[in-house]
Amino acid sequence: MSDPLDAVLAHLESRRDAAIADLGEFLRFPSVSADPRRAADVKACAEWLAARILATGLTAEVIATPGHPIVLAANQHRADRPTVLLYGHYDVQPPDPLEGWTTPPFEPTVRTTPAGTQAIYARGTADDKGQVWAHMEAIAAWQSVGGGLPVNLICLFEGEEEIDSHHLAEFLARHEQRLGADIAVISDTNGLARGVPAITTGLRGLVYSEVTLRAAANDLHSGIHGGAVRNPALSMAKLLADLHDPSGRVNLDGFYDGVAPPDQGEHDAWAKLGFDETTYAAGLQLSRGAETLAGEGGFTTLERRWARPTCDVCGLTSGYQGPGAKTIIPASATAKISFRLVPGQDPLGVRAALEKFVHDRCPSGLAVTISHYAAAPAVLLDHRGKWASIASQAIARGFGAPPVFIREGLTIPVVNLLKNKLGLETLLLGFGLPDDSPHSPNEKFDLDQLRAGARTAAILYQKLGDCLQ
Amino acid sequence: MSDPLDAVLAHLESRRDAAIADLGEFLRFPSVSADPRRAADVKACAEWLAARILATGLTAEVIATPGHPIVLAANQHRADRPTVLLYGHYDVQPPDPLEGWTTPPFEPTVRTTPAGTQAIYARGTADDKGQVWAHMEAIAAWQSVGGGLPVNLICLFEGEEEIDSHHLAEFLARHEQRLGADIAVISDTNGLARGVPAITTGLRGLVYSEVTLRAAANDLHSGIHGGAVRNPALSMAKLLADLHDPSGRVNLDGFYDGVAPPDQGEHDAWAKLGFDETTYAAGLQLSRGAETLAGEGGFTTLERRWARPTCDVCGLTSGYQGPGAKTIIPASATAKISFRLVPGQDPLGVRAALEKFVHDRCPSGLAVTISHYAAAPAVLLDHRGKWASIASQAIARGFGAPPVFIREGLTIPVVNLLKNKLGLETLLLGFGLPDDSPHSPNEKFDLDQLRAGARTAAILYQKLGDCLQ
Repeated sequence: MSDPLDAVLAHLESRRDAAIADLGEFLRFPSVSADPRRAADVKACAEWLAARILATGLTAEVIATPGHPIVLAANQHRADRPTVLLYGHYDVQPPDPLEGWTTPPFEPTVRTTPAGTQAIYARGTADDKGQVWAHMEAIAAWQSVGGGLPVNLICLFEGEEEIDSHHLAEFLARHEQRLGADIAVISDTNGLARGVPAITTGLRGLVYSEVTLRAAANDLHSGIHGGAVRNPALSMAKLLADLHDPSGRVNLDGFYDGVAPPDQGEHDAWAKLGFDETTYAAGLQLSRGAETLAGEGGFTTLERRWARPTCDVCGLTSGYQGPGAKTIIPASATAKISFRLVPGQDPLGVRAALEKFVHDRCPSGLAVTISHYAAAPAVLLDHRGKWASIASQAIARGFGAPPVFIREGLTIPVVNLLKNKLGLETLLLGFGLPDDSPHSPNEKFDLDQLRAGARTAAILYQKLGDCLQ
Repeated sequence: MSDPLDAVLAHLESRRDAAIADLGEFLRFPSVSADPRRAADVKACAEWLAARILATGLTAEVIATPGHPIVLAANQHRADRPTVLLYGHYDVQPPDPLEGWTTPPFEPTVRTTPAGTQAIYARGTADDKGQVWAHMEAIAAWQSVGGGLPVNLICLFEGEEEIDSHHLAEFLARHEQRLGADIAVISDTNGLARGVPAITTGLRGLVYSEVTLRAAANDLHSGIHGGAVRNPALSMAKLLADLHDPSGRVNLDGFYDGVAPPDQGEHDAWAKLGFDETTYAAGLQLSRGAETLAGEGGFTTLERRWARPTCDVCGLTSGYQGPGAKTIIPASATAKISFRLVPGQDPLGVRAALEKFVHDRCPSGLAVTISHYAAAPAVLLDHRGKWASIASQAIARGFGAPPVFIREGLTIPVVNLLKNKLGLETLLLGFGLPDDSPHSPNEKFDLDQLRAGARTAAILYQKLGDCLQ
């Protein structure tokens, strides 16, 4: 009897152009979860995705939440097979700044990348619609030519990943009986480089807050009042300047309590990955190449990205921002501040330390407002057990190269929720590349990665299906 | 023979409602000189103003410049009368932030001020259309019921005052033979308070520059790259934080060279003005009242506003500024920085010191761009001579209260140009009030000030006309 996987992989090969066209439909929805004006687009995207899943023969529902809906789908489960929870998200980051895009963010376009490969460009290509679509191709292929999926599959596609998965915890609790599984699979991360696929074994956590310092109800004439009234932009600058000490360490009370450096094994393994700062800097189009790389003293660039906590300013707003000169003392200044956390750090503790920092240091003449968005801890995943071994084999065949085990600096809040609410371990198989520009203009997803991702997913489902036998 | 001034003042009294309506027409033009999209509105405003002047019996021309046009007008000159050059500007500041306005910036509305007076609200009411209109009413009254203006008058109404009078120097040089005068009069400043009119004897200078620090071509994902790439918003914060030392002094090399403290006479006179910090802070709607007042140590609030140089940040832009969280390292950060200068400081020296400061301190990994806008020196005007005495008498009768002699912190570049290009002294008779909110939302001009300003202008023209006899 022939292996049904052969037919599945052949089918995927035959659908390469069709897969790009279908992903293009998915990408045309401006499903920007952060923008209230896009709520109808987010919902329409969920409904389109559910209809596409239904067409493969699975059940699929669009389930309302107090925020954006969740798409929940499943095949017919059998007691003799393991159950896999596939998580992905169909919402995307805001496309700003629009002027940075070569082609419009919601008009998917295939073109050649600076690296010479072919890629599809649009907001959400890599993060996460393209990676979801690799799984969708694999699911559809198993359903249409493989005799049906070889595992019990549950698909959980969220519409609020980019806004901190606001309503996911409540959803998991409410639908717990429909979400029981043996392992979770998420493709929302990156390989190490082209030709070097990766399994991610650690993610950083996130605290994101917004601080506003206000001096007056309105902007004031800087000639008439300059020198007399405290300038909130200058006070904000002082506050932000003090967030790091001269060595690049974050200056909040207790910020490093419980933080351990990477263990010797990881340190040694990462040193062998062949990470090249010059190539990395070129991929990011940094102003001064590798000279623009900077951060906490005493650690390598990879360690700083994967295993060290950070503090970044993500946005600054104050006063006049149009062309030319407007001579004012701004009424207020606002900074969006994010912290990436590593294992051992408590997000709520960091949030409290930031509040204390701001209130202790802000001049008394300014009114302070602090708004909080994300607060998610870091995660470390098992990279020695059965699931990692299966994933490793699937990647090796799907990509034609064995994966490396890496950490990533980003945050995927659902990994914690799946662990804490459902007791589920997660496999992070990333199909993206480091130069995909997620969250930036000209986000893209390489077509070779879409192909290899779909193959890997198809193989993974078979190997997971076999693992109880 | 009756004094024609009596008829003129009676005519002004009869036109109080009509004057408000006509000023309203002037204010409806969105003559925002900084905004290239408003160029046609600026020109239309100039043409409207010229037509109104023509209707009084003066000649009036709209003269093109490489930028916005200048309105030049004159009456029939006679050799036995002094010549007065009246300068004003018909351009206005940008109306941003629009959400701060109670009524739209270009829909003039009369309503009660927080102080209980009646005022007309619109962009440009106080700065400078309302003050120009006070003179226009006086001119029209002399022409229609006073037997003609009692002085040789030249009106020079500029359209680029809010963008550093870019083309005025060249205009003055080209039209020098039409601009010969004995004294210049400008109403573009403030009284000290309601009921306390003022003659301004000093203005600060201005240097305005924009600094951009760039780390990358686009914003980068702060999870994937955070800790590895230098954050330009944080580098900008450090740079701006270092602009002042802990005592509030500006930290540029040589910034205070040549700066003298106010002389004892001014110090003593200002101390007697009855300036009240609590009232001042309340008028500005400061967040923490007088506690929000701050600046260079060792000087009073009035001294810091009128006689000490300052450095302010007028605008800050970096990264994501929309609602909610976007997790990025900004590609770049931009700050608009202004310096107010006092006598003894060289604007180009300050500009050079800022450039050195930025280049010396900016981390090498960032690309630096510096754009320069204004560079104007401070001015000190005579307050003991004939012209000041005449102006003082005109104000005393026009306002019903004698003026105080003050300085102001703002910059009117034309005062220097008139001195240097035409050898002209200037009288600064301000009809505005400190709570007018020029350059801010809800800019207004008190109707009592419009009335007293028109009376003062009418009286001033008579007294100037008499002064050679």
